[in-house]
Amino acid sequence: MVWAEGLIAVDWGTTNRRGYAVDADGAMTAEMEDGQGILAVPPGGFPDAVRALRERLGDAPLLMAGMVGSNRGWEEARYVPCPAGLGDLAGHLRWVAPDIAIVPGVSFSDAGRADVMRGEEVQILGAYAAGMIAADATICHPGTHNKWVRLEGGRIASFRTIMTGEIFNLLREHSILADLLEAPAEAGAAFEAGVRHGLEHDDLTAELFAVRARSLLGKARREDAPSYASGLLIGTDIRIGLRDAGEGEIAVMGRPELTGLFAAALKVADRDAREIDGEAAFLAGIRALAELIE
Amino acid sequence: MVWAEGLIAVDWGTTNRRGYAVDADGAMTAEMEDGQGILAVPPGGFPDAVRALRERLGDAPLLMAGMVGSNRGWEEARYVPCPAGLGDLAGHLRWVAPDIAIVPGVSFSDAGRADVMRGEEVQILGAYAAGMIAADATICHPGTHNKWVRLEGGRIASFRTIMTGEIFNLLREHSILADLLEAPAEAGAAFEAGVRHGLEHDDLTAELFAVRARSLLGKARREDAPSYASGLLIGTDIRIGLRDAGEGEIAVMGRPELTGLFAAALKVADRDAREIDGEAAFLAGIRALAELIE
Repeated sequence: MVWAEGLIAVDWGTTNRRGYAVDADGAMTAEMEDGQGILAVPPGGFPDAVRALRERLGDAPLLMAGMVGSNRGWEEARYVPCPAGLGDLAGHLRWVAPDIAIVPGVSFSDAGRADVMRGEEVQILGAYAAGMIAADATICHPGTHNKWVRLEGGRIASFRTIMTGEIFNLLREHSILADLLEAPAEAGAAFEAGVRHGLEHDDLTAELFAVRARSLLGKARREDAPSYASGLLIGTDIRIGLRDAGEGEIAVMGRPELTGLFAAALKVADRDAREIDGEAAFLAGIRALAELIE
Repeated sequence: MVWAEGLIAVDWGTTNRRGYAVDADGAMTAEMEDGQGILAVPPGGFPDAVRALRERLGDAPLLMAGMVGSNRGWEEARYVPCPAGLGDLAGHLRWVAPDIAIVPGVSFSDAGRADVMRGEEVQILGAYAAGMIAADATICHPGTHNKWVRLEGGRIASFRTIMTGEIFNLLREHSILADLLEAPAEAGAAFEAGVRHGLEHDDLTAELFAVRARSLLGKARREDAPSYASGLLIGTDIRIGLRDAGEGEIAVMGRPELTGLFAAALKVADRDAREIDGEAAFLAGIRALAELIE
């Protein structure tokens, strides 16, 4: 197998998947995204699901990351413990066919904590491999489950997951706040007020209800509720995440609509933030891993 | 209308309603509960919904509390601001028919906070009227939205709502933790460990994910997850709620399955707790209000 002649990179999550064809020069030549996350694949259905990917993206070897390697995915690629660098990931690929491998996730535990990630590790170590972040860095990776990551010597040394995105989605879709939170959250005065509350107070589960009460009592504008609630959750997230962060700039990595909100919130916290596109980092990580396979 | 000859008390919530027939001596002679919460009543359907209640509970005058007086209910009974005692509630009943009244909710606001309750006020002031709690007391009222209430001189002086019950239900029904949280939570070592974490740390949205990570990494027993997560949320709730609480005993009021968990958690926090049955307090409150009508 000749990975250097090109490959297909797949970020295969719980509810979505993204695939990219990458040529011998490392350039992306085709991409696709659909709702065929691992929960949409029937038992034994992964070979067929990959055939559909290949029809769109070609016959190159396939390197996959994300929940496809979880115990609900194709085959389980067991977590590599921290500290974990690209070499550690490459040494523990799970081969499901001679030309198809799954990148393992990363785990962290110490006396008090335990944590896991799947998918973000490729972006983070890819960003380092491509020179987008330094060997020693603090990364904030927002998503359904935000990850605060310490990179030391180019390896993931420790990290902490905060369920900020999922909690916001639960509130928006299923809670008593649902009708208040329909509009999109955006940076601005209401968002910053929420961030500030989250940074300065540790009463998230009380303050969320106050969003509703203020609206009922005419003490806040109804249209500010989504941005305030989003800011409140993100400010709370940053208050927790910054405890383990080093000095200096925070690299905020992921989808631009999320990194923009977190970068705005970090500014309220007087921290420098630099946004990094998660897709570019993912492709850099997959290419760097492919080089290590040979 | 002769309220002293008996009445029907209704605790009409969002998803359920409970009705009680009370005789001239204040004794409960019949009761019913069904899923006809206000969201199940079609527009204009409250007169019919009351007819169904009367078929089960008789023709006495009807005094209702809870979300039936909200802007999604029958008619809006506007919030009475703190400080609010039984006389304040009785003075602001919303009459929807000559023999049917809705008890208003209570609101609290100061420079920084805003809060509302509907239904709990009848239980709390009823417990005071019946001598179950003192005129100056701290009440913890768990439910979908837990209320921490300061009673001063027999009136509700201030309160704070914490969304503990709703967040737990959202996690259990819709989150990535759902399959871990299926079993019922119960007091015991795992619950107490969760309470302790919640009391001592302000990282709820991070620690919730650790429940999953520990299970995946084999660092905690899967069967302990519901009790630990429940304890974590309740410990966090108590950490916030105790800030406004006075010295001395906490009256924990509500449904016995919930007051038992909160009382166990307060014990971990080294606070005395006394459980008070919410239904008995509700009936005491409705009877006391009926006496004030005449």
